[in-house]
Amino acid sequence: MSDCIFCGIVAGNRPASVVYRDALALVFLDIRPVTPGHLLVVPLVHATGLGELDPEIAAHLMAVAQRLAAALRRSGLRCEGVNLFLADGEAAGQEVFHVHLHVFPRFRGDGFGLRFGPGYGERPSREELDRHAGAIRSGLQAETEQ
Amino acid sequence: MSDCIFCGIVAGNRPASVVYRDALALVFLDIRPVTPGHLLVVPLVHATGLGELDPEIAAHLMAVAQRLAAALRRSGLRCEGVNLFLADGEAAGQEVFHVHLHVFPRFRGDGFGLRFGPGYGERPSREELDRHAGAIRSGLQAETEQ
Repeated sequence: MSDCIFCGIVAGNRPASVVYRDALALVFLDIRPVTPGHLLVVPLVHATGLGELDPEIAAHLMAVAQRLAAALRRSGLRCEGVNLFLADGEAAGQEVFHVHLHVFPRFRGDGFGLRFGPGYGERPSREELDRHAGAIRSGLQAETEQ
Repeated sequence: MSDCIFCGIVAGNRPASVVYRDALALVFLDIRPVTPGHLLVVPLVHATGLGELDPEIAAHLMAVAQRLAAALRRSGLRCEGVNLFLADGEAAGQEVFHVHLHVFPRFRGDGFGLRFGPGYGERPSREELDRHAGAIRSGLQAETEQ
């Protein structure tokens, strides 16, 4: 897509600090890092979200992220742990509409964390969890039959 | 591992609201959901973190997460977007030491969000990003030669 920032990086038409590239994926530094070394793993082929992404490519992004997590731990950058994060859709916080898997180093006192809505921590009953599980299994069935 | 909660669920010795199972992965409801429908995708075989996990299984977890994200969108549960999240190591917020990929629905007003450390939003210079990229490439090289 000609107006996609990440497609521009893949094509070499936009600057990026590239760490890794193979036949399916590119990895480069996020320009607004959560912590130093914050990486984005993106497919070379444009896909807006998970729903458009070839499952084999999705799987490959994770294998690449796993290798990069190991590389971060060996990089000399501060890295006591690693988070992977992916936002699929605007309501999930997605800002660039070319699928990207965040991989960023974590260390004690880095200030990163998760905020939760009211009611977080309340444990739903087993009946409620089972009801949700049933709804999701139905969704999976519908997805499979598509 | 006999004292691992998720191994107990995989073995059927602990209760869980299961959504999906195949030869490599199990998916069940988180008992302390960020939003209703919050899922955990776990490998059947115990692995403490990403560093111990077979890369093919890591890749498979993502393919499963992608299918479950689609299922959530069709489940009837409130789902306008989806986040994937993985915490590798205590410093990254990992609490159960059996690798698990979180998949949870998002919707406007759900209250979930990310907190950032001081200095977030400052854009490092290209020189600094390139230096970090070089350090991570060295880490990747060391990892590959291992």
